[in-house]
Formats: sequence, C-alpha cells, structure tokens
Amino acid sequence: MKMIAKTPEPPWHSVIFTSVKTGGDHRYNEIAENMIKPAGERAGFLGAESVRDLNGITVSYWESLEAIEKWKCHSEHQRAKERGREEWYAEFAVRVEKVEAARFLERKAAFAAEGKIGEEP
Amino acid sequence: MKMIAKTPEPPWHSVIFTSVKTGGDHRYNEIAENMIKPAGERAGFLGAESVRDLNGITVSYWESLEAIEKWKCHSEHQRAKERGREEWYAEFAVRVEKVEAARFLERKAAFAAEGKIGEEP
Repeated sequence: MKMIAKTPEPPWHSVIFTSVKTGGDHRYNEIAENMIKPAGERAGFLGAESVRDLNGITVSYWESLEAIEKWKCHSEHQRAKERGREEWYAEFAVRVEKVEAARFLERKAAFAAEGKIGEEP
Repeated sequence: MKMIAKTPEPPWHSVIFTSVKTGGDHRYNEIAENMIKPAGERAGFLGAESVRDLNGITVSYWESLEAIEKWKCHSEHQRAKERGREEWYAEFAVRVEKVEAARFLERKAAFAAEGKIGEEP
C-alpha cells in the first residue's frame, strides 16, 4: 500500500483510529493487514494511511457517512472489532470526521496544491 | 505524551499530517518532538497523537479553525514547515477536518461511550 492516499478534492469523510496495544501479538498484524483489502473493495472507499508499532494510527477515507456505516456493519470488520476489544487494545479512540481542506506535497513534482494532487502514477 | 488524546465531546477540528521521510535524519526527531510543546501552549489546542517511523501520522485536535490558523502562523511551526519541505519529506499530506463523532475504549474501565470518556487520571 502506498503511504499517502490519493484522495480527491474535499469534502468527504475520514475515520481516525488511534490505539495502544496490550503487548501480546494475538495474530494482530496478519488480521490488521487483511482488514485493508475488504475495505478497499467497499463502495465509497477512497484510501487509507496507517503507521503502527505498539501505538497505531490508521486513517481511512470515505465518500460519505453512508459508506462508513456500511463498512461498520461488514462482517469481517465486525469480527476484527471483537478481537480488538477482547485481546489487542489497551486503549483506543475512533473519530469520524468531515474533511474540509487538503494539501499535498510530492518531492518529485515539488508542488503543493490546495485540495488537489496530480494523477496516480 | 500519553498516546490517546483526551478530547472533549465533538464538534471540534483536527489536522491530520501524514508523511514519508526522505531517509536522512536532519535532526528530525529532535525538532518534531519540540513541535509538540509549543502546540500544547497554544490557545484552543486539545491534544495530539503521533506514530512515526519512516512513515508518520500526527493528528492534532483543536477547538476551532481559528486556533488552527493561529498555529499555522506560529513562527516555530513556520520554521519546521520550511525544514520539512526542504529536507525531511519525500511526500506529505495535510488534511483539516471537522470531528463529528468520537468513541473511546479504555481496557481498565472496559467501557465505550459515544463522544465521551472518563476524567484524565
């Protein structure tokens, strides 16, 4: 997965998931990686960005609140959420947000544009 | 810094900064750590969460867009932004968002509440 998601011009929505793990592995990385794929196949999914060690932040981007609601009810996501609550996380926060402005820099192109980036290479 | 920011009930605003580093150190960690402190002293700052390796995600939370605008103009932040553009980042994205809903879990208390968490310990 490319680190910076190629999101379109706002507005659209995001989900920020920040977490602190309990310490044990509990097949976490394997299942967390497998979460990205079904999200990518959902209607209205625009991309995701994730950095994890013991702490983690994953941001996913969505066309609408409706698309987020449908993803919340997806069965694979439901199972992962149960594992998260029961085994993985000492603490977490989920924040649903509306993206109002976005700005990007890519060193190759050396440009920054309000709310817009170049085409996917 | 505690990982999960103790943010109040929405609505308020956030800035998501996602980045890919160029590779060299260029005193990055030292200066990035020093960015948190002046942000914490700004009016309207509600907290921040950050995970970094070669990729990084930092989310900061603010009472209002006005507080974010004032922080954008802060001189120490300006200098760090110049270093970021010139030396540190191969690529980055900044997204300004309005937080509409928040949900938390803390294992100690084993509860999840919409838009609300317990008092800071």
